[in-house]
Amino acid sequence: MTVQKWEVFELLLHGIKEGNPFVSVELTAQFTYQDSEDNKTLCVDGFYDGDGIYKVRFMPDKTGVWTYCTHSNQKELDNITGQIECIDNDLNNHGMVRIKNTYHFCYEDGTIYYPFGTTCYAWIHQPTAIQKQTIETLKNTGFNKIRMCVFPKFYANNNEEPPMYPYQGQAPNQWDFKRFNPPFFQALENHIIQLGNMGIEVDLILFHPYDKGHWGFDSMGKEADLRYLSYIIARLSAFHNVWWSMANEYDYIKSKTLEDWNTYIEYVSKKDIYKHLLSIHNAERFFDNWHPNITHASIQIGTNSSKGEVSTGFGMYRMHRDIYHRAVIFDEVGYEGDLMQRWGCMSAKEIVDKYWKAICSGTYMSHGETYSSDDDIIWWAKGGQLKGEAWKRILFLKKIVEESHTEGLEPLDLWWILNGVGVHGQYYLFYFSDIPMNRWTFKLPAFKKPVIDMGTKFVVDIIDTWNMTIKRLPVEYVVDTSDRYYYQSKATPFIELKGRKNIALRIVKKELL
Amino acid sequence: MTVQKWEVFELLLHGIKEGNPFVSVELTAQFTYQDSEDNKTLCVDGFYDGDGIYKVRFMPDKTGVWTYCTHSNQKELDNITGQIECIDNDLNNHGMVRIKNTYHFCYEDGTIYYPFGTTCYAWIHQPTAIQKQTIETLKNTGFNKIRMCVFPKFYANNNEEPPMYPYQGQAPNQWDFKRFNPPFFQALENHIIQLGNMGIEVDLILFHPYDKGHWGFDSMGKEADLRYLSYIIARLSAFHNVWWSMANEYDYIKSKTLEDWNTYIEYVSKKDIYKHLLSIHNAERFFDNWHPNITHASIQIGTNSSKGEVSTGFGMYRMHRDIYHRAVIFDEVGYEGDLMQRWGCMSAKEIVDKYWKAICSGTYMSHGETYSSDDDIIWWAKGGQLKGEAWKRILFLKKIVEESHTEGLEPLDLWWILNGVGVHGQYYLFYFSDIPMNRWTFKLPAFKKPVIDMGTKFVVDIIDTWNMTIKRLPVEYVVDTSDRYYYQSKATPFIELKGRKNIALRIVKKELL
Repeated sequence: MTVQKWEVFELLLHGIKEGNPFVSVELTAQFTYQDSEDNKTLCVDGFYDGDGIYKVRFMPDKTGVWTYCTHSNQKELDNITGQIECIDNDLNNHGMVRIKNTYHFCYEDGTIYYPFGTTCYAWIHQPTAIQKQTIETLKNTGFNKIRMCVFPKFYANNNEEPPMYPYQGQAPNQWDFKRFNPPFFQALENHIIQLGNMGIEVDLILFHPYDKGHWGFDSMGKEADLRYLSYIIARLSAFHNVWWSMANEYDYIKSKTLEDWNTYIEYVSKKDIYKHLLSIHNAERFFDNWHPNITHASIQIGTNSSKGEVSTGFGMYRMHRDIYHRAVIFDEVGYEGDLMQRWGCMSAKEIVDKYWKAICSGTYMSHGETYSSDDDIIWWAKGGQLKGEAWKRILFLKKIVEESHTEGLEPLDLWWILNGVGVHGQYYLFYFSDIPMNRWTFKLPAFKKPVIDMGTKFVVDIIDTWNMTIKRLPVEYVVDTSDRYYYQSKATPFIELKGRKNIALRIVKKELL
Repeated sequence: MTVQKWEVFELLLHGIKEGNPFVSVELTAQFTYQDSEDNKTLCVDGFYDGDGIYKVRFMPDKTGVWTYCTHSNQKELDNITGQIECIDNDLNNHGMVRIKNTYHFCYEDGTIYYPFGTTCYAWIHQPTAIQKQTIETLKNTGFNKIRMCVFPKFYANNNEEPPMYPYQGQAPNQWDFKRFNPPFFQALENHIIQLGNMGIEVDLILFHPYDKGHWGFDSMGKEADLRYLSYIIARLSAFHNVWWSMANEYDYIKSKTLEDWNTYIEYVSKKDIYKHLLSIHNAERFFDNWHPNITHASIQIGTNSSKGEVSTGFGMYRMHRDIYHRAVIFDEVGYEGDLMQRWGCMSAKEIVDKYWKAICSGTYMSHGETYSSDDDIIWWAKGGQLKGEAWKRILFLKKIVEESHTEGLEPLDLWWILNGVGVHGQYYLFYFSDIPMNRWTFKLPAFKKPVIDMGTKFVVDIIDTWNMTIKRLPVEYVVDTSDRYYYQSKATPFIELKGRKNIALRIVKKELL
């Protein structure tokens, strides 16, 4: 039996159907790797998949031979042994996404990952035709992460019953929280696999408040919550492209306390032997994201950024990373759309402006869209088709970030420079938001004394963030002077920008091109 | 023996002079209060004050009889008993400043305290004439807090030797860290008392990095650090107007680790029976201000706010309180002055703008000034005289905040409104920074559905934050309509502002005037 690195090995076993195997049967497996340099044993939970079928899933992270042995309170599931050979990956699977340099992300194989995700909370709960359309849309756009919920969503613009439920019982609210519904989870897994094949990370929302007594999945009680988390981890943690989003708008879930959340976070972090990325998403109260088991901050923040109101500035984004000392993804900042709620009626320009601010603050952001329509299929809730204008500009920005070939765009100074990121001496990206820039003084931050040799040449691109144009200036900028805070060019002191708005500058050391 | 509530009772005892009493003599005292409703015993440390004199200080917080009993490893200091009668306060002493409603401050007697402080790091280490001048300046301005260091400061514009040192030994760096220098601490105490009589809280900086091997007070080692903290607490914690600022620019003190700081914070918090306010001030790395013993965040952040660069916005200030869930004082934001360092050459207008942004974000700020002069006496380091223009505007703002008669100006919405604070339905303060406002739509936030009855009248003042004028509009604004997010006035929908900058609006319910 061979399995590729970071793919799923699945051991299928047969056992009892009687009683309630979801709670009565215990099943774990030890996977052991041993060679001259390494020797490790990992223990994973198996799970009951219905119809007398039991499964154990395992994702090997190292090529070579792994042996396994099961343990169970059922004789027919106990002491099953075997071995798998983990071989090199020939698929487009770079492994799990992990934190890189505190504030950024990379795959396990070292490939840099810049999160540019979108949001379709309940797309897996829609009819098949809409699901297919969602997948098509994702294929044609290029987002590499999606926020989606396990549980169905009962909310404005989204209150149909889903085709399947995670529990056995009777809709809407007669559930046996001790009996999962395997077909539901099988379908979920197929979605995760499909998305994985498309290079999309699944930021899986484990709890959310959009239930409010309709199904009761937001208030199952602590015992059921933990059983659910255990089942989720047993089934899904072997999929490389899963992230745990403990909750959406955690503070709107009135049945759970901060202590509960801490318990659940610690539980998931402990149970998940692979240590997938783990976050929790706020509504009105920022979570205490310095919790040691939280890998990155998943922030919601709604602001008016450019409606003639007071500007939010770059500092707001930057503060999160610098206060939490964590990677930050602004997973909700309001949606491009036409809903009456203020969070659902942002203009595409506002959204694109926010994105550039986030990237030029050393953080990341997620997309969503809330254009209403006659069929009530809104991307943010159900998927389907994108109708807006922001997503193209966001993916234009994604391409720019990818082309930086950096391990993450880092702020270039303390809080004195809030609108520029890059790598000292090599690559700079500055953004000016809605400030009409006549000209920009060519000055490269010198804080902490990065070395830029006199005579170093830089090439400057003027980026129109809305019209998606990149214009390379014919003039090279040569560093020929420096002071306490900046490297500058006496020969070519300015970059003329003619009062344009929403302009960015990309400045790259010539010899790197 | 009577002592007024929140004043200092001092028990003076005589004992040995031989050896090193600073380390050999143990002395504590129990103070017990008992009446029909309450029964408590507090234990404080005594200290050696030189010349065979030992002191125990105690600040009673309750009127009535307190009995005391000392304990010591020295017979002549042991089992000394007595009683004091704590009587009502007839001085202008409101007790210690404590946290109020998470984000604000009040005195122990319930009087609201809005911190408007200034900074003179090393004023107590200057010659007497300059000290007197500093006190005169403070009397004539109205700041109610001062940041100042225990240890002298060795830094640009401040590298003279001080008149006294906290340790016995030989300047500059031959110190016996086991022998304190009582006259130094007696002088410090006199300054604290003097400031207390002026209504000024002392934000006492216990460690700082401006030493760099000159005296060695920044790198005494853990044992000496803890002995120092213990001595400080024994001597000073009975003074009501002391706050503990664990460090200035803690992350520039290379000899101490994050673990050390956590140890010191816990040590001080545990030793200080009164629980004075406790914070730690950052340079480049924000401290983990969610530490349970930290009472409020003391933040340094340097930004360009209005130099034609990108605006920092209000969000930057607001994020700190909303992320830490703590009261926040921006104790350093750059200084009004003319130094060549960017933090020391802010214009008064910039500083005033920052202050208004902080207040209108539900946070607080501190003042400082760095105008150079021939005699090298710069306010921020040495005290003396103020030369700038910001301080008057800051105290104008202080008066406005005091006149709000609120328990603290709170943000009025989630992050959708970042420039307004107040109390729903009663009092509003909006600030527009450097945005030229033609007119402002009269709209009072309705988030979380505060009740404002239709027909409620509001009086509007237009505040010119720089020219310090307040103009009351003759028109009353009557709330006559509301929607999901705002209360508005169809009859008088706008406030005309004629494109002016740095304007604030004060909107008060008429019947409260």
